[in-house]
Amino acid sequence: MKLATIRLAKRESAAVAVDDVLIPLPATDVAALLSCADWQDAVEAAVRDMAEPVLAAEADFAPAVAAPGKVICCGLNYGDHIAEMGRKFPEHPSLFAKYADTLTGAYDDLVVSGSGKVDWEAELAVVVGKRIYKASEDEAGLAIAGYTVANDVSMRDWQHRTSQWFQGKNFVRTTPLGPYVVMADEFGDSPDFTVRGWLNDELVQEGNTETLVFGPARILAYISSFTVLSPGDVVLTGTPGGVGAGMNPPRFAENGSILATEIKELGTLRNRVLLTA
Amino acid sequence: MKLATIRLAKRESAAVAVDDVLIPLPATDVAALLSCADWQDAVEAAVRDMAEPVLAAEADFAPAVAAPGKVICCGLNYGDHIAEMGRKFPEHPSLFAKYADTLTGAYDDLVVSGSGKVDWEAELAVVVGKRIYKASEDEAGLAIAGYTVANDVSMRDWQHRTSQWFQGKNFVRTTPLGPYVVMADEFGDSPDFTVRGWLNDELVQEGNTETLVFGPARILAYISSFTVLSPGDVVLTGTPGGVGAGMNPPRFAENGSILATEIKELGTLRNRVLLTA
Repeated sequence: MKLATIRLAKRESAAVAVDDVLIPLPATDVAALLSCADWQDAVEAAVRDMAEPVLAAEADFAPAVAAPGKVICCGLNYGDHIAEMGRKFPEHPSLFAKYADTLTGAYDDLVVSGSGKVDWEAELAVVVGKRIYKASEDEAGLAIAGYTVANDVSMRDWQHRTSQWFQGKNFVRTTPLGPYVVMADEFGDSPDFTVRGWLNDELVQEGNTETLVFGPARILAYISSFTVLSPGDVVLTGTPGGVGAGMNPPRFAENGSILATEIKELGTLRNRVLLTA
Repeated sequence: MKLATIRLAKRESAAVAVDDVLIPLPATDVAALLSCADWQDAVEAAVRDMAEPVLAAEADFAPAVAAPGKVICCGLNYGDHIAEMGRKFPEHPSLFAKYADTLTGAYDDLVVSGSGKVDWEAELAVVVGKRIYKASEDEAGLAIAGYTVANDVSMRDWQHRTSQWFQGKNFVRTTPLGPYVVMADEFGDSPDFTVRGWLNDELVQEGNTETLVFGPARILAYISSFTVLSPGDVVLTGTPGGVGAGMNPPRFAENGSILATEIKELGTLRNRVLLTA
């Protein structure tokens, strides 16, 4: 099953993909949907009724999860990216937070003002399906509702103004997420995905989540050791090597650059960068 | 005017202080209240009706703002605390995020599991009253709804597991906030407050917000240069010297320690630390 959040004429709505259309669901986004105990019944009813279908090719995608309570990111989680950023292999996951309004749709323009170092970070994102707190790795794995694609677009100048990355990672509407959440039961246990990132037509990032230092279930369990994860929360699992800041010389997105982020089983983000003063 | 969020028998409610009682308001917390355009009318009506009064001395205080969209903290903002943490004087504010469920009530126990380095950080917190984005410092100053008291209780072992402080700053229900939000119009422009922190009966922290490197309006304006601040959002302004990690030898809260945090014009937090495995 594939879910999305789409923009309709007067509202945003969770939706389920059926062949080449999206059927709106009675929830404002995928986070609100997953928070309902009977969400699978709602999906079944919508698939039966097929009311208000929207052609997927013509849909206006909001962030796949538009209003998560928490968006927690794991940095420095692929060996090659750790090396290119000049850091040591970690004993614990490096975690930082985004707010929901940092997210944007799968094909939205990324309008960035005041940064000259807009960099890309292609990532697998995990969507939480159950409330967990102090979960074991097994329990955390079972709490994964599905997977989606993220580009943790980072304003490196702001990120490195201080020791805390938060400000360079939280420019409003700069983290595309989507287009779809593909439910975990479409895959086996601990699936691995190849994550690819392009700058215009150039493949700049490629990594397999099999090489993550901390895999999805382990990150979720770790987070749950100090805070609560709830249905609809999103966890970004880190980016493989090939970010612009790690290149010699460093490279960054220019005005009009197209960033594409692909996980074949999940979908592709395609976003134009618009730099303003 | 003093607002609070209190726990009633079956719900949480924003409330306004009138003499020695709190009058419930038609909003689930102060963030929800401040998000209503006509919130001042609602307060006036409640003060007129004086319905369902709760004795302040007997009230069960939730976090003064229980459900803010954003809680953004500024670290390393007092010269003496910067020195004790061995850091350089900053050109930009060090910002990091908390989630709303990290907050707790003014007199709640702080139940912390899995940390042996529970430290205190007495702080002035600012409550946002208007939506701002790319605001000037003057505009940001006018967007301050009021002030409250926070203790940014920090699990130093977790905070320093990686370069990112987030995990040591986001243990669920460990940041007391309150008891009251005192509205900004009770003070002149750019008021200064003396912030004090006690470990049991020992005064360990004392600083005046006049000595902040980045004052409230400047922090809000800076944050608004990359993200949106909305009514009810909370900004913690940093802590003065005297945290346990800066002592020689370092000291931390023990099981049963009482942390008190006072800003005379605003109120006092009083929280017992309970350490569990």
